[in-house]
Amino acid sequence: MTDKNFTQPVIILVCPQMAENVGMAARAMMNCGLCQMRLVNPREDHLSEKAVAASSGAGEILQNAEIFTSVTEAVADLNVLYATTARRRNQIKTVYTAEKVMEPLNSAIQSGSRCGILFGPERTGLENDDVSLADAIIEIPLNPKHCSLNLSQAVLLVGYEWYKTQINAPAEQFITNATHPASKEQLLKFLEFLEQSLTDFKNLQDEEKRPTLLRNLHNIFTRGQMTEQELNTLYGIINHFRQK
Amino acid sequence: MTDKNFTQPVIILVCPQMAENVGMAARAMMNCGLCQMRLVNPREDHLSEKAVAASSGAGEILQNAEIFTSVTEAVADLNVLYATTARRRNQIKTVYTAEKVMEPLNSAIQSGSRCGILFGPERTGLENDDVSLADAIIEIPLNPKHCSLNLSQAVLLVGYEWYKTQINAPAEQFITNATHPASKEQLLKFLEFLEQSLTDFKNLQDEEKRPTLLRNLHNIFTRGQMTEQELNTLYGIINHFRQK
Repeated sequence: MTDKNFTQPVIILVCPQMAENVGMAARAMMNCGLCQMRLVNPREDHLSEKAVAASSGAGEILQNAEIFTSVTEAVADLNVLYATTARRRNQIKTVYTAEKVMEPLNSAIQSGSRCGILFGPERTGLENDDVSLADAIIEIPLNPKHCSLNLSQAVLLVGYEWYKTQINAPAEQFITNATHPASKEQLLKFLEFLEQSLTDFKNLQDEEKRPTLLRNLHNIFTRGQMTEQELNTLYGIINHFRQK
Repeated sequence: MTDKNFTQPVIILVCPQMAENVGMAARAMMNCGLCQMRLVNPREDHLSEKAVAASSGAGEILQNAEIFTSVTEAVADLNVLYATTARRRNQIKTVYTAEKVMEPLNSAIQSGSRCGILFGPERTGLENDDVSLADAIIEIPLNPKHCSLNLSQAVLLVGYEWYKTQINAPAEQFITNATHPASKEQLLKFLEFLEQSLTDFKNLQDEEKRPTLLRNLHNIFTRGQMTEQELNTLYGIINHFRQK
């Protein structure tokens, strides 16, 4: 029992059947920066070779996993508890999507509460009595005709939604490696050079077609967001043609 | 080659190694309402017993999968192509998160374009040349210290982000089964009944403590968003105490 970290939700696997699935769940947790796993009556050894292999480098999470003999013990020190379930059964409770639940969950954590998320056994999911211990239900929106998920995939999707709230990944970025996006001046110089290289091109001599043609060329190379390196490549190609 | 459906992205697995992973990817696709799979040079038989078992009911996707011998052939009829990759290598390209890419992807589909998403082989991921065919890169934001994903999990996360844009799942809802949330009138009647049942309770007789106590009781039962059935349960319990 090391390194308790209540700045993130505890992942509680209730009666997981296959050690391999526990290992894969640990891998999914690590993918999402989650490190606290609790197991309630796991059927197989969660430190077996199979489990560790399936965890694919997340053996530390398995090593640190805490084992309990009942759900009530496993959640005793927590303040807020969510139950992940695909079926709603006889419950009177708030149901959140995996995305939306991160709002109340993070806000509870920020006000000092310890949060946990329950996941049921592979075949049957959580029992009604376990769900009734939870403050709210988490549902992962999936194709209703085929919503059965592998245990580790359920952990992955919930963990992924949590991880997204923890980082500020730029939603969209233009990557250019060693080179830079060309400045407008560099681009316009290139377009002038291209135009000069085309003085004997028939359509450019046609006064009616000329403006549209030039505009099209500007659009092609502006839309492409050229880098300096790419402009140099194009200069080389045009020079090659001109020397022919 | 049946039932082409370009209202959703085509999932293209490049050189998948294990038939089991192809099956699990099909399962993940079905979870997310995706049905068009293309395979480029799969190493194993995607219709093997192992693959079909791993697809867990998504055998139809495997049956309908189209097989190609090169990525260029597999993407020939598409207009817009995205490459899923964890490493950026030497590319000059826009990188979207799995969530954000659904905006340009859906908008391309709505304007009649055929879209595809490339996923690389298990160990190595996509080759640089394959990535260069793509209009943009999709990155799944994950723990940078441990971002290696199983093939089917990458398909699941991207598919999940797509599926979320296709549905209007209420982000939060209160489920009550057969019963209804109590009206304010019903709740206040219950609170009056509770108050009357407590006439001999010391703190209620204390004129200083009385207002706070009543306010607390109102808060407890208002915050809990009681249903009609639950109020009836509480009436029963209070009557039981009163008869003692």
